[in-house]
Amino acid sequence: MKTESRLVQWICWLTVITSFFLTGFIIGWFARPSSTDTSHDEGSRRYLREFLDEMRPENIRDHLRKFTRLPHLAGTEQNLRLAEQIKGEWLQYGLDSVEMVPYDVLLSYPNTSQPNYISIVDQLGNEVFNTSLSEPVPEGYENVSDIVPPYSAFSAQGQPVGDLVYVNYGRTEDFFQLEREMEINVTGKIVIVRYGNIFRGNKVKNAMLHGASGIIMFSDPADYCAPGVQPYPDGWNLPGGGAQRGNVLNLNGAGDPLTPGYPAKEYTYRYNLEEGVGLPKIPVHPIGYHDAIQLLKNMGGDIPPNNWKGALNVSYRIGPGFTDGFSTQKVRMNIHTNNQVTRIYNVIGKLRGAVEPDRYVILGGHRDAWVFGGIDPVTGAAVVHESVRSAGKLLRKGWRPRRTIVFASWDAEEFGLLGSTEWAEENAKVLQERAVAYINADSAIEGMYTLRIDCTPSLHNLVYDITKQVSSPEEGEEGVSLYESWHKRDNWTDDRDAPRISKLGSGSDFEAYFIRLGIAAGRARYTKNRKTERYSSYPVYHSVYETFELVERFYDPSFQKLRAVAQVRGGLIFLLADSQLLPLDASQYAGSLTKYAHTIAQLGQKHPDALVTYGVSFDSLFSAVENFTVAARDFHERLNTLDRTDPIQVRMVNDQLMYLERAFVDPLGLPGRPFYRHVIFAPSSHNKYAGESFPGIYDALFDIEHAANPKQAWEEVRRQISIAAFTVHAAAMTLTPPA
Amino acid sequence: MKTESRLVQWICWLTVITSFFLTGFIIGWFARPSSTDTSHDEGSRRYLREFLDEMRPENIRDHLRKFTRLPHLAGTEQNLRLAEQIKGEWLQYGLDSVEMVPYDVLLSYPNTSQPNYISIVDQLGNEVFNTSLSEPVPEGYENVSDIVPPYSAFSAQGQPVGDLVYVNYGRTEDFFQLEREMEINVTGKIVIVRYGNIFRGNKVKNAMLHGASGIIMFSDPADYCAPGVQPYPDGWNLPGGGAQRGNVLNLNGAGDPLTPGYPAKEYTYRYNLEEGVGLPKIPVHPIGYHDAIQLLKNMGGDIPPNNWKGALNVSYRIGPGFTDGFSTQKVRMNIHTNNQVTRIYNVIGKLRGAVEPDRYVILGGHRDAWVFGGIDPVTGAAVVHESVRSAGKLLRKGWRPRRTIVFASWDAEEFGLLGSTEWAEENAKVLQERAVAYINADSAIEGMYTLRIDCTPSLHNLVYDITKQVSSPEEGEEGVSLYESWHKRDNWTDDRDAPRISKLGSGSDFEAYFIRLGIAAGRARYTKNRKTERYSSYPVYHSVYETFELVERFYDPSFQKLRAVAQVRGGLIFLLADSQLLPLDASQYAGSLTKYAHTIAQLGQKHPDALVTYGVSFDSLFSAVENFTVAARDFHERLNTLDRTDPIQVRMVNDQLMYLERAFVDPLGLPGRPFYRHVIFAPSSHNKYAGESFPGIYDALFDIEHAANPKQAWEEVRRQISIAAFTVHAAAMTLTPPA
Repeated sequence: MKTESRLVQWICWLTVITSFFLTGFIIGWFARPSSTDTSHDEGSRRYLREFLDEMRPENIRDHLRKFTRLPHLAGTEQNLRLAEQIKGEWLQYGLDSVEMVPYDVLLSYPNTSQPNYISIVDQLGNEVFNTSLSEPVPEGYENVSDIVPPYSAFSAQGQPVGDLVYVNYGRTEDFFQLEREMEINVTGKIVIVRYGNIFRGNKVKNAMLHGASGIIMFSDPADYCAPGVQPYPDGWNLPGGGAQRGNVLNLNGAGDPLTPGYPAKEYTYRYNLEEGVGLPKIPVHPIGYHDAIQLLKNMGGDIPPNNWKGALNVSYRIGPGFTDGFSTQKVRMNIHTNNQVTRIYNVIGKLRGAVEPDRYVILGGHRDAWVFGGIDPVTGAAVVHESVRSAGKLLRKGWRPRRTIVFASWDAEEFGLLGSTEWAEENAKVLQERAVAYINADSAIEGMYTLRIDCTPSLHNLVYDITKQVSSPEEGEEGVSLYESWHKRDNWTDDRDAPRISKLGSGSDFEAYFIRLGIAAGRARYTKNRKTERYSSYPVYHSVYETFELVERFYDPSFQKLRAVAQVRGGLIFLLADSQLLPLDASQYAGSLTKYAHTIAQLGQKHPDALVTYGVSFDSLFSAVENFTVAARDFHERLNTLDRTDPIQVRMVNDQLMYLERAFVDPLGLPGRPFYRHVIFAPSSHNKYAGESFPGIYDALFDIEHAANPKQAWEEVRRQISIAAFTVHAAAMTLTPPA
Repeated sequence: MKTESRLVQWICWLTVITSFFLTGFIIGWFARPSSTDTSHDEGSRRYLREFLDEMRPENIRDHLRKFTRLPHLAGTEQNLRLAEQIKGEWLQYGLDSVEMVPYDVLLSYPNTSQPNYISIVDQLGNEVFNTSLSEPVPEGYENVSDIVPPYSAFSAQGQPVGDLVYVNYGRTEDFFQLEREMEINVTGKIVIVRYGNIFRGNKVKNAMLHGASGIIMFSDPADYCAPGVQPYPDGWNLPGGGAQRGNVLNLNGAGDPLTPGYPAKEYTYRYNLEEGVGLPKIPVHPIGYHDAIQLLKNMGGDIPPNNWKGALNVSYRIGPGFTDGFSTQKVRMNIHTNNQVTRIYNVIGKLRGAVEPDRYVILGGHRDAWVFGGIDPVTGAAVVHESVRSAGKLLRKGWRPRRTIVFASWDAEEFGLLGSTEWAEENAKVLQERAVAYINADSAIEGMYTLRIDCTPSLHNLVYDITKQVSSPEEGEEGVSLYESWHKRDNWTDDRDAPRISKLGSGSDFEAYFIRLGIAAGRARYTKNRKTERYSSYPVYHSVYETFELVERFYDPSFQKLRAVAQVRGGLIFLLADSQLLPLDASQYAGSLTKYAHTIAQLGQKHPDALVTYGVSFDSLFSAVENFTVAARDFHERLNTLDRTDPIQVRMVNDQLMYLERAFVDPLGLPGRPFYRHVIFAPSSHNKYAGESFPGIYDALFDIEHAANPKQAWEEVRRQISIAAFTVHAAAMTLTPPA
């Protein structure tokens, strides 16, 4: 009995214990989250703080100093050495891998034995005036060799002689005004235009289209001097002897002119120079305003309207040719610039993602400079360098981003975005499938006023988020966030009470990533006051006067502004790479599309009769945008109930967010521009710098003004509206539940 | 004391119990796998068996019977009703959603009041002979209305009169032989060619290119009758009164001719008919061999070489025109066919994936038929129907595939693959991002000999796998697998000891998915003996004699062959949708690329001198293929150590496998064919039916033969080799570790 009752007691206890064990087991089983991802984001935010704080003004200063001692033109030994230095330092900082990626692309250099210049010649052919062969070298750089003189890269060779015609900025509308209102034909003439307002390549294209035999571009003080500022080195204005270098291609995103669509590797087929993309067929040359005065002062012909006049003490007569007393004089261009296939090097550094190594966030900016690159690009390169250093610090503390971060130092940006475009071409498939976002890192400063952001709408909120976590670099604004400082200076009053964010145009290395491949992209820099400062870019842009001292003395003596830009660019990269849910916003895209649809419809409604005659309506576009708006709203609502512990569910919605930008790419490209494929954003055909929304419709409407066959021109408008409506519908589809 | 000891005892027990609970909790916590995916595949295999066994010959027979009672030409009421019926039944079978997706595309119908025919006219213009206006209707279908008479869809209208010239099959080489060797110019003549060998649209294009004013195509018994077989209804040969309908477009993958690149929706811009893609500019008409004898028998001119002669009792003289005694007679075509924008309907059914609903496996085939569609397409549609039914059965047993399965019943395939292409256009973005594979389901039988598979190399092993799990449908082969039966009949002797698998060409609805979008694709059907049966497709192809009885009496009385095809198509879909790791094989792709590179290099090496003269080398292609081979091998080796319990790791490699086919797409398209974008597989420009490997290089080499400017032609070969090499390198890159 006793043993029996003992047994019963034991059995009882065993049962109790077992049941407690089982209860524990069951609770344990279910208590365990199937993924450990949920708490990641808070940790990530702490690391973000460290990442931002680690970036130091004095380091950025040091990088800038180090990278601007010598010229580093694309394709030169010095730029290769700089690439190797950067590679070495990135490895030291702790990136997982850094490689040099070479391409053999078409570059263009002045002939060292036959300098380029422009002459005024008398009737015997004697040169009575010649433009200067170089810029006066700034103090401290007198012993530097290899300063390339001002030239227009990819200019045709030749020595055209002819009468000058002045065509203002050389815009499409300037040439039309010249031919239709002023009734002057430029065929066989040499046109002279002032720099500014539009991309110089567009000026050259316009001159060619209208039959000019050559084109001279000059920097007018009206466009390249700020009032009350001294010329460099006493201030940051352009001196009279300074001139703006730059390429004069019309690539429309093709990259290397001889290998459009494909990377310029050893196995790649190269077109002949005659077949190359975007190469001008006429000589082109840039001059400063001291030389310009000499060419302009004796010009004859009519006096132009006031908006054609610059700030030089001449009357800006249109020509053709010189005034009485000088009418036998002609202008001769002497251009001997050579095109040459040359090896360039990108530096590509990678920081492998811990969870999703197959998702890429890219921070890329160029390294090559026309001369020292004091602003362009080294303020950008210094900022990237500091971001790499700071990321390396975090790595050593055990942090690793969820996704892979790619850092790029592009080569040959100045020659047509060549390094970045070739790499995009070589990696197109992989990027299309895996790239989350591209943040551009060209010049970090172009003015001293406030922040400037150009980015895709889905990044707007992330930009606001990060700028709230960065301090204002302005003196007297301690404790004020960059967001507030920026908001105060540049409020987006028409649309909303928030700091203004602009559309992306082109002219820097994000182009292939955004406009060709459809990767969400953005750029950040410190800028001038757009309301009061009227000059183009910044006065010494692409001159020899872009030095370290320019930045240290005038633009950012404390290097606080550059630090703030570094924190914005780096912060964007950090959050894109490390947030569990991608910080991209489809609803903001919807808001922007609505705005753009209204803008483009208003442009069309300037022709109310034609809209009726040709049956053109914007209704289908509005209806597509409405459809997209609903899809975006529903998508973000569903995110609220997402099971964030399920890695596949998270990946699915992240894929939808990542591919949203891709959905706006039309594989057929914009009309005549196969490498500009973004239906929502691309530069206008008339100015590469300006980002237009619905560029296909915009260009078609632009052409209406001058159309020989209006019916056909309006048909093209209808076709473009239809493509835009389709694209927006297709994008909406990517946001709906996948099945 | 007593209370105290009680307390101690309780504390002890509590401790013991708690520790057991905790032990349980901890063990439970860690015992739970972080993913429950590992055992899935075995369960999946059991369901596969059920899925295959559930498909029944008698059901396929019933579906075929039901869907072939009436004509269901695209764009007609009857075909809409059939779509609605299919939708209803798919919903009944249990699909999660089924929708009708309409498009408004350009179709082409004979004019009901002015029939099409061809006359022989005497010098007074009297019609001395007219071809028949319709085919004799088979028994049992006498009361059926709406049988469209034989016609060439999209023929131009017109009544050209002229002398006949006979040009064999109307191939590029036939026209060159005619003009260069026989010295006959077809300008202004009506050409007559026999059907077969190449796609009829290519014949029409060639006739246009060479200046013909019209083209007549006839079915020669040499190409449309098997020896020893009776004409239908006593056998399966084409009767003399039968003729082959068919479209004569040259779309090159554009889909609807008026909306190339975009879906034909209400908001879509439509080109004018004159601007439409691929529409012939001359009248075209098909005739049977009874009529052909009348046109051919009195022809004059030379007797052609033997390979130009068919099996009719005429001498196949070339012309031009008739022989003495008939030389005043001319031929007149009377063609009144109308092009017409018409609404068509796809039926799209979905079975939502349980784990990855955003991954799509597509089984699609067309529903529209020229008349009854006895073979084309209803043997295919019946098979799809049975697959849906079987999948529905499994669903009710609790199965749900890992990925989403999409079933499609396409419309207007016969008019240029319109339904499938428009849907691909509308869903391009989503498909590009999410589609795993496309299995085509057109005609399931074209002969009685064995299985025929055309598919992308990455599917080869899966095809072998599934055919080993399907039984041979041949009598006397009980217990023999389809794989063995097929292997015995069609061994791939040159390459390997396995059943032959062919390249995909075009001519059916997989085109937009495979050649434009780069989605892994395949097709399966029962076929004739390629070594002994020389006729084109099957004799009654596209005639009124494609009836239910044709299949039931001759092709597959037991419906075992159609069942086997259903099991292959369905099994492929099942394994693609339900395997944890995608059953796609990159190494097999590498093997095929190696083979193709050798084949195309051999084609080039037919011109050894030119290769030297123009510096053409295939080395870069071989080196790229070698690179791909290594990448593929390493990729599959890494799969062996993959942590299959980590859902993100599995998703990453599956993404690499899914996107492999996409990597072969060149967004710029093949030369002059923007919608044919697959660099490895596309039809030759000279025959839409034939799939060529490296089609860009193939076409460039084809053109060499007749090139006016050999240097330029060889430059194009070099360019195409470079594009192929780049594409293969880029594809290799997608297989390397992502970071």
